Amino acid sequence: MQETVMEPDPTWVRLETDALGSRKIPRDALYGIHSLRASENFNVSGTTLASLRPLVKAFALVKKAAAIANNRLGLLTDEKADVIGRVCDELLAGQHARHLIVDVFQGGGGTSSHMNLNEIIANRGLELLGYSCGNYEHLHPVDDVNLSQSTTDVHSTALRIALLFELVELENAVSGLAESFAAKGRAFKDDLKLARTHLMDAVPMKIGEEFTAFSHVLLHDLENTLAMRAGLSQINLGGTIAGSSLSDQPAFTHAVIGELEALTSLSLMPAHDLVAAAWNMSDLVGLSAGLKRQAITLSKICNDLRLLASGPNGGIGELSLPPVQAGSPQIPGKINPVIPEMVNQVAFHIIGSDVAISLAAEAGQLQRNPFEPMLAYALLGATGMLAKAMKTLAKQCIEGLMVNLGRSRNMLEHPQTIENGLVPFIGLKDAHVLAQSISADTPLSDLLAPYLARKPKS
Amino acid sequence: MQETVMEPDPTWVRLETDALGSRKIPRDALYGIHSLRASENFNVSGTTLASLRPLVKAFALVKKAAAIANNRLGLLTDEKADVIGRVCDELLAGQHARHLIVDVFQGGGGTSSHMNLNEIIANRGLELLGYSCGNYEHLHPVDDVNLSQSTTDVHSTALRIALLFELVELENAVSGLAESFAAKGRAFKDDLKLARTHLMDAVPMKIGEEFTAFSHVLLHDLENTLAMRAGLSQINLGGTIAGSSLSDQPAFTHAVIGELEALTSLSLMPAHDLVAAAWNMSDLVGLSAGLKRQAITLSKICNDLRLLASGPNGGIGELSLPPVQAGSPQIPGKINPVIPEMVNQVAFHIIGSDVAISLAAEAGQLQRNPFEPMLAYALLGATGMLAKAMKTLAKQCIEGLMVNLGRSRNMLEHPQTIENGLVPFIGLKDAHVLAQSISADTPLSDLLAPYLARKPKS
Amino acid sequence: MQETVMEPDPTWVRLETDALGSRKIPRDALYGIHSLRASENFNVSGTTLASLRPLVKAFALVKKAAAIANNRLGLLTDEKADVIGRVCDELLAGQHARHLIVDVFQGGGGTSSHMNLNEIIANRGLELLGYSCGNYEHLHPVDDVNLSQSTTDVHSTALRIALLFELVELENAVSGLAESFAAKGRAFKDDLKLARTHLMDAVPMKIGEEFTAFSHVLLHDLENTLAMRAGLSQINLGGTIAGSSLSDQPAFTHAVIGELEALTSLSLMPAHDLVAAAWNMSDLVGLSAGLKRQAITLSKICNDLRLLASGPNGGIGELSLPPVQAGSPQIPGKINPVIPEMVNQVAFHIIGSDVAISLAAEAGQLQRNPFEPMLAYALLGATGMLAKAMKTLAKQCIEGLMVNLGRSRNMLEHPQTIENGLVPFIGLKDAHVLAQSISADTPLSDLLAPYLARKPKS
Amino acid sequence: MQETVMEPDPTWVRLETDALGSRKIPRDALYGIHSLRASENFNVSGTTLASLRPLVKAFALVKKAAAIANNRLGLLTDEKADVIGRVCDELLAGQHARHLIVDVFQGGGGTSSHMNLNEIIANRGLELLGYSCGNYEHLHPVDDVNLSQSTTDVHSTALRIALLFELVELENAVSGLAESFAAKGRAFKDDLKLARTHLMDAVPMKIGEEFTAFSHVLLHDLENTLAMRAGLSQINLGGTIAGSSLSDQPAFTHAVIGELEALTSLSLMPAHDLVAAAWNMSDLVGLSAGLKRQAITLSKICNDLRLLASGPNGGIGELSLPPVQAGSPQIPGKINPVIPEMVNQVAFHIIGSDVAISLAAEAGQLQRNPFEPMLAYALLGATGMLAKAMKTLAKQCIEGLMVNLGRSRNMLEHPQTIENGLVPFIGLKDAHVLAQSISADTPLSDLLAPYLARKPKS
Repeated sequence: MQETVMEPDPTWVRLETDALGSRKIPRDALYGIHSLRASENFNVSGTTLASLRPLVKAFALVKKAAAIANNRLGLLTDEKADVIGRVCDELLAGQHARHLIVDVFQGGGGTSSHMNLNEIIANRGLELLGYSCGNYEHLHPVDDVNLSQSTTDVHSTALRIALLFELVELENAVSGLAESFAAKGRAFKDDLKLARTHLMDAVPMKIGEEFTAFSHVLLHDLENTLAMRAGLSQINLGGTIAGSSLSDQPAFTHAVIGELEALTSLSLMPAHDLVAAAWNMSDLVGLSAGLKRQAITLSKICNDLRLLASGPNGGIGELSLPPVQAGSPQIPGKINPVIPEMVNQVAFHIIGSDVAISLAAEAGQLQRNPFEPMLAYALLGATGMLAKAMKTLAKQCIEGLMVNLGRSRNMLEHPQTIENGLVPFIGLKDAHVLAQSISADTPLSDLLAPYLARKPKS
Repeated sequence: MQETVMEPDPTWVRLETDALGSRKIPRDALYGIHSLRASENFNVSGTTLASLRPLVKAFALVKKAAAIANNRLGLLTDEKADVIGRVCDELLAGQHARHLIVDVFQGGGGTSSHMNLNEIIANRGLELLGYSCGNYEHLHPVDDVNLSQSTTDVHSTALRIALLFELVELENAVSGLAESFAAKGRAFKDDLKLARTHLMDAVPMKIGEEFTAFSHVLLHDLENTLAMRAGLSQINLGGTIAGSSLSDQPAFTHAVIGELEALTSLSLMPAHDLVAAAWNMSDLVGLSAGLKRQAITLSKICNDLRLLASGPNGGIGELSLPPVQAGSPQIPGKINPVIPEMVNQVAFHIIGSDVAISLAAEAGQLQRNPFEPMLAYALLGATGMLAKAMKTLAKQCIEGLMVNLGRSRNMLEHPQTIENGLVPFIGLKDAHVLAQSISADTPLSDLLAPYLARKPKS
Repeated sequence: MQETVMEPDPTWVRLETDALGSRKIPRDALYGIHSLRASENFNVSGTTLASLRPLVKAFALVKKAAAIANNRLGLLTDEKADVIGRVCDELLAGQHARHLIVDVFQGGGGTSSHMNLNEIIANRGLELLGYSCGNYEHLHPVDDVNLSQSTTDVHSTALRIALLFELVELENAVSGLAESFAAKGRAFKDDLKLARTHLMDAVPMKIGEEFTAFSHVLLHDLENTLAMRAGLSQINLGGTIAGSSLSDQPAFTHAVIGELEALTSLSLMPAHDLVAAAWNMSDLVGLSAGLKRQAITLSKICNDLRLLASGPNGGIGELSLPPVQAGSPQIPGKINPVIPEMVNQVAFHIIGSDVAISLAAEAGQLQRNPFEPMLAYALLGATGMLAKAMKTLAKQCIEGLMVNLGRSRNMLEHPQTIENGLVPFIGLKDAHVLAQSISADTPLSDLLAPYLARKPKS
Repeated sequence: MQETVMEPDPTWVRLETDALGSRKIPRDALYGIHSLRASENFNVSGTTLASLRPLVKAFALVKKAAAIANNRLGLLTDEKADVIGRVCDELLAGQHARHLIVDVFQGGGGTSSHMNLNEIIANRGLELLGYSCGNYEHLHPVDDVNLSQSTTDVHSTALRIALLFELVELENAVSGLAESFAAKGRAFKDDLKLARTHLMDAVPMKIGEEFTAFSHVLLHDLENTLAMRAGLSQINLGGTIAGSSLSDQPAFTHAVIGELEALTSLSLMPAHDLVAAAWNMSDLVGLSAGLKRQAITLSKICNDLRLLASGPNGGIGELSLPPVQAGSPQIPGKINPVIPEMVNQVAFHIIGSDVAISLAAEAGQLQRNPFEPMLAYALLGATGMLAKAMKTLAKQCIEGLMVNLGRSRNMLEHPQTIENGLVPFIGLKDAHVLAQSISADTPLSDLLAPYLARKPKS
């Protein structure tokens, strides 16, 4: 929801002017006329740029790096570069959020988000320099703060930086969840259970193997997602509007990427083709696909957890998920698998989000994709939610999960299943004879024991 | 974003207990232990129930109707029913939003949202009755506020009520936008332009016809969306948990629907099959499809607007969209079609959202769909954003749109196009001869004039 | 797959010419130069128009109706109209399929499919008139067969006619499947089972209620799909290329729709707005959404069937689906739920197809949607497969499905479930006491019997 | 479409028996009772396994490798291994397609496709050995042809092999298309044109840069797709039904992968986790995402091509696409961009297909994903169509594409655009002055010439 901006005394305003005319701005508002118009034009989602904190921070990093680079290239005075850097540090610390007033759904390819930042930096810089807001002749949102930059390159770069940082969070979350499953895999590495294919009883397997497989697949998917970092690390600062060699700025590109690497500790490189970078969303599409792939796996795992924990009497009941809240006020004792259910919904959201991203990416035309703000909103949302959902799943569900060994065993010890399990060791006929001999006195583990030491016939 | 709940003096708490144990609650928090646990369990999207205002209001209406119905059936005292109604009125007025603390992404099928409301109503009711929060023996969140109800029926009903109200907004928005286009259709009903098929020059048409078609399609789609109201108006209050005839409550159903109709002025009816109503999301899927259909049309229209307004020199340039903000700080005078671009993004979001809704609907199992909260979040978001985007488009883009008649004419007056346009009237050969005779002195309108009065040969 | 067209003696050809030049055509090929070029241009899916039989038949009906209408309007001789009608009758009987050589994925908005039909009709008509193929001066594919028509109106109309016919098949399939479930509902209307919410044991319900709900939801969804017929019945014959009032042909529209109604026994009407009809895909999008909604419900039902039939030992095992094939050659006796699994896949395909249709519909520009062929392919595929999947499900799975009453009862007769079931009748405390008294000697049905006669407290 | 199997003399049958009973089989049918039942159970899409040639070939390679490996391990006689290999060679040569009778939409996770192959191999092997079909005591579809294998591992492996081969085709297609664009990039490397952002006139760029960017992005996407080969190369032969260490067959795994590498010249390795491999579809989801990403880029490029070629009078008209067929029989001379339009539709299909694949992958439960046949159908279709669409685009559209340099120049030479283009070199004010001086006598190239030699100010 849009943060409320306190209305000052209505007479207490300053006047700003752009190509379309003049507008009154609250006197101490750090945003300016471009932000004001944008906030009026785009009032659709009720969610402002302030909610996309990783993007705001990345903008601040880019702006600071650009100021330093411009200063090094002799284009910006020490004083201006310094004060821009100081405001960026304040933004990085989370300050000035109430001045981030533009809606995350916006036309213009991110120009409004970008100008909101440019204006905040200029006005807050003016304050720090001892001027009042709006006296842009001392520090200009475009001529100084945006020097050598355009929205095409700054929005794209900021988004990539933001996502690269968010991927660190995601990596931690996946690793943590994978380790939770791996620990369960180790804990139950020798216990037997029924493997089910097509939901029908199949053959014996080890309980630990089921958990370990979850762990392995999570990490396998993560590897795919992290491989997308290579593309995301190619940034187009200096490409300006359309990336053409007629207007790109190689010296600035070289300088600003160096500064940005220093500020972020990320490994970055210039985009291979600046013209392509101005419109092509492939790297973002690739990341979305990676997130979707993880969401699909995660949803399947949660489906399994809910199924294996179903019951307690009328379901499979092999697992007990830790109770985290009452399931139904009306039914005392009913506990629902609310954590996996929440994760499922996050997964569905991300799968849908991937479609929205596909449409937005496909719809770019000629030298620009005007829909990058939607990609930013969707991707930052998906990455953040996926990480949080996984962390919650690990902590609130997997760590405290218990296996009902007795029930697992009961479901396994059926003559047909034993027979199925023995076939690979001793063939169809002998397996059939042996399976018929199963009883309470000769449990499965004893029956299988002689075979477990060796591998099947082949 | 989650509204910050001010932390009271940490010693200043009350204790609440549920099946899982006891927890300290801030003493004057209107929410209770169920909400607290849920807010800890589901911390994933950063968006709380407070942001879904139409749903909160609908919950309040359902709770108030239920209290009155229970009172009529002799199940709830006058005092309790009265105070519940009073708190619901406060919720309808937008009060107590800061106590709506649960995340919109939640497991449990909406139980957490529902209990958040039940607890707020009970505690605020206790305050109004002169008790302090938590003294549930005087007004109980479950036994009183939730009497005769369950989440299965209340969440489903509240969502439908909320959507029915939101559809009124949407209807207004579509009608308004359609009228904006219709007005342009009337204004340019006699002006000729080039019709393009496959983006290639085809035949002459009237400018007004293009706008009028937009208007007609918007209304045609709206009709489809509004037809979904019939299904949405079937509500399952009284069905309790699974809708079985073993546990449904026909007397309550009858009473509460009557009260709800009175409170909402909506026409409602009991669900045809209460067991189906407990798990089936078809009506919500149908609404999502309707919204998606509108989004598709809207996006196509915005694509056309942007295309027809492209240029001014290097594009089609038949239209001029009203400037609403500077397009690029670096390029003075560049104005971008930011309003249609914003609308495109809303459309992409809704198309993706429809996929997420499809997955959630398909994933329900047996007697319940636990993913209804995600459907609520997605559908309320889609409906609201679609309405706002259409209103913005009408006001900020269509009303001030101008047609560049000279350019339209220049693009039309090409011998081949004239020939194409004359074929249906005079046949291929004559059309060819006549078209070659076109010159600055004999403009198209004069050429076509004799034919416009009558219909083609057939 | 593309049907192989037997190569004749290479010297045995005729020559045809179009705007791009001349090409040799196999002498007795009924297709002509337009089809030949198209078949070379679009060789991408390996699926030709011949596989879309409902569309071919609908084309034939439109062409026949147009010939009659043109004849009535004095535009076409009796002889030509008659022979066109005779060829159309042959096409309706399934003849000449090997001459339908164009790929279903084609640019041009269906012009290639349309011309393939026009050329076949002309050439076969020439044969019937005693001329050899290619002598178009006696019967011309465009001037005669396509008189008063264009692809914009003919392809759109033929697709709608085809879909309206396919919907009859679908209606039969849904009704049949719903009746299969209804029959099971009647058969088990008094038997009790466990209702599960969130996959966890909840309350008692009746077995019949579960089946009946499936039946009701299928019919509820069908109603929504059939409501789309109203939009599909609006056809734009006579609108020609762009639907403009400058070139439409009201007399032909009136005449041809009347003939088409007579030939098809469908109720048809002219499109409300011919300009909109030339580009707007909303009615097709609406149908796709209806199919998707049915697919979602169907997939959920199949998921439930597979879950309830899981086991036999390690799952829920309440149902036994009729065995239709061995599940695994290696595991004797393993039977998998292959029919519902097949249906799930059809549903997934349709849900994905709906997205493809959304993209194609959104991507139309200005006065035409060039992607209608993909919508035709996807919609005819989805409609046909949905109908066949439902028929198979009814016949191969539901009719022979058995309920394992003993297992159902065992899963229900758990003290907690009994207690849950009694709460609405006698309150929490009494229910708890009574539920504890359950034993093999006092089964659930006896316990519940006194309560089943009356309704819950409210 | 299903290939018609000629019905033999009805008395001329053999009898086969499985767990469900006996069935008559046409005497010389190479398929057996499992295939027959499956063909009756799954009659939904009308497309049989025969249409998935790459999959059939991959099955044959796997079966041959398995026979050799089993022979090496001493499990299969030389004679049987030899004859199995000979039949597989026949299948690789495309023989026996009419006996591939099962529908591609099938339950059972591919068991029916697999058994169709097993039965064909056994019966054809029997023929080669001099026995009549059905005398399985001499060569058994399961005990011999399927020895050491199960559908879980064979279907999964065959699909991966098939896709790896198809990716070679795709790689060729992408490389070819990229080179076509690169050639245009080189041809127009010095010509200037107007860069458009948000469809509005922006700055000058080079024509060649636009084409080169297409080339680069295609190759960038290809790199991502090809990276998916690593996951696809991990195969689970030897894992049998559920991949458990209780039943896997390491010796067979080792042997068969070696043989398969020799037969295919592919680099393969055993799956990292056989339990995961039995249910996890991540590698297939990843490939689908890669194809979708390419489809998105491709669709954007085709959109641009159509837009830049729009007109000739009423559009942008910078490009002329080579005419490949008449656009409209009614409008002489109208040529539509049918090739890019076809490619767009392929892209939409693939984007939708990716959603279907996502659903199928997510819906796997416990130790198996029964929906792998749909993934096979969708992925093989998408890969093949994408390759064919790209080859067609290169050959039929890009190679013959022409640039209308005069029109490009006219659209560029507008004072505002010149000014925009000069700003980075000489600043806002000087650019404005200079731009006003433009005339027919001082064209843009002359104006810009002095600046093109050096880089912008920064």
